[in-house]
Amino acid sequence: MPSSFADRLVDAVQALQAPVCVGLDPVVERLPAPWCAAAGDHVRAARALTEFGAALIETIAPLVPAIKINSAFFERHRSAGLAAHDELVARAAAAGLVVIGDSKRGDVGHSAAQYCNGSLGWDDPMAPHAVTVHSYLGRDAVAPYLDAARELGRGVFVLVQTSNHSAGAVQAFAGPDQLTLSEHVAGLVDDWAGEEGLVGASGYSAVGAVVAPQDPEMTRRLRARMPRSIFLVPGYGAQGGTATDVAACFKPDGTGALINASRSIIYAYEQPTYAERHGEDWQYCVADACRDFINDIRRAVVSN
Amino acid sequence: MPSSFADRLVDAVQALQAPVCVGLDPVVERLPAPWCAAAGDHVRAARALTEFGAALIETIAPLVPAIKINSAFFERHRSAGLAAHDELVARAAAAGLVVIGDSKRGDVGHSAAQYCNGSLGWDDPMAPHAVTVHSYLGRDAVAPYLDAARELGRGVFVLVQTSNHSAGAVQAFAGPDQLTLSEHVAGLVDDWAGEEGLVGASGYSAVGAVVAPQDPEMTRRLRARMPRSIFLVPGYGAQGGTATDVAACFKPDGTGALINASRSIIYAYEQPTYAERHGEDWQYCVADACRDFINDIRRAVVSN
Repeated sequence: MPSSFADRLVDAVQALQAPVCVGLDPVVERLPAPWCAAAGDHVRAARALTEFGAALIETIAPLVPAIKINSAFFERHRSAGLAAHDELVARAAAAGLVVIGDSKRGDVGHSAAQYCNGSLGWDDPMAPHAVTVHSYLGRDAVAPYLDAARELGRGVFVLVQTSNHSAGAVQAFAGPDQLTLSEHVAGLVDDWAGEEGLVGASGYSAVGAVVAPQDPEMTRRLRARMPRSIFLVPGYGAQGGTATDVAACFKPDGTGALINASRSIIYAYEQPTYAERHGEDWQYCVADACRDFINDIRRAVVSN
Repeated sequence: MPSSFADRLVDAVQALQAPVCVGLDPVVERLPAPWCAAAGDHVRAARALTEFGAALIETIAPLVPAIKINSAFFERHRSAGLAAHDELVARAAAAGLVVIGDSKRGDVGHSAAQYCNGSLGWDDPMAPHAVTVHSYLGRDAVAPYLDAARELGRGVFVLVQTSNHSAGAVQAFAGPDQLTLSEHVAGLVDDWAGEEGLVGASGYSAVGAVVAPQDPEMTRRLRARMPRSIFLVPGYGAQGGTATDVAACFKPDGTGALINASRSIIYAYEQPTYAERHGEDWQYCVADACRDFINDIRRAVVSN
């Protein structure tokens, strides 16, 4: 039996005392020079993303346990971008990071099997350790990922509650007893999380959930509904969430959540606080932003 | 103002009297020789998909108005597969087909903008004319596609009701007055479809819906709820749906739906009916299967 994704992630977080994840979603126009000049040509842009991403991975690997690579920002550059994505996945894994492929796929079973095959590595050993998926099609669309969890030790994070402004228009749709769609989906996620062969020695399952904190009471209800699932938590930093907002995603023992920050870390050199300290050395800015991020989250966990 | 996606699709269907679409979701192991021998190597497999796909496009282009290209089956082969996908999109468009990229993306606004940019062609003129997307994140996740519809004449099909076995576990989640999630999403889709600049001269909007027929009464309710949306209808053929099942997706005037068949067409050479008639000439088998498919759907529209 392969080692459990959840156990691996729990161990990596524990080792660094840092329940955080850096999100890599680079826009070429916004990168430091000379990379920003590569905009407008897919092949050159993809090379710039690869070089920037490789240097970023080198910077963050000693500091944080995990990286979330957002496929949208690579697919923008089509096949050249996807090749860059895959190279960075391999580099991040080689650097010892837990790698989450944030690709949010969701399709009927026979298509889901192809997406899963492509992204979770029956064909490619250097695949992300886990990916994000949609829940709208029910278990069929998730089943290949559950198989990959059992057979290859991979993980999956199912979208439950997202961080965007209009999320509530669908996710807060309320059924009987005012149970919302996000709570209903959370119940399904917990069913899948508890399936045979998916819960590791840590007590956490290979089936996690994407939960962005919105209303604190709802976050607590989702936390209670999915006791075996690690929450992958977007929304902190550039998306406006604070450490207090994300605190409810943790259990009282301080486990159970991985807080992601993307733009506030990878573009730290745009922030005066860091730029004034380190000038044009963007990697120092990124490292300092990582340390501040980790300290902020540690404080929130302690005061939870 | 660019020409409307919906008008273009309506005209193409009208010209051939064929409200149908062929779905291209090829698995290399299942292709005719010698292509099936390319399994196991992404570059060779991608070349096989390109060659098979190009020949298939040549076969179907005179017969049907539209093709739906399922990105899952290309992404399985990573960057080589995505390059094959993009080449076939360009070839299908050049052959005069309306091209629907079935990639079912769904992410928060700034990520959705990247997916949209990559798939609908601000950067690439040879992009699909429309794509499929998820609704779970509400309007934010669809907004870039609405912009692409207005500015570039592209279209989008939002997932409302899917064809898979477990779809109901989420989509039939019922709220107040027994309104289901799929009906609630249909209401949102109709709001988006009616936004300024999206409804063409045909009366149909650039915002369509993916609706697989399940319960006939529900199909009629969804049809009534989204009067301006063209339904992209999966589930016919290999997925078990019949022409009678899909008939309720059309309006009484015979417009408003595009019925998709994938495996029952592209693998027609596996069916004794066609194989006995044409031997190893798989393209004749595909053409015959297209004609039978069109006749079957025409009869269903007439008897609706």
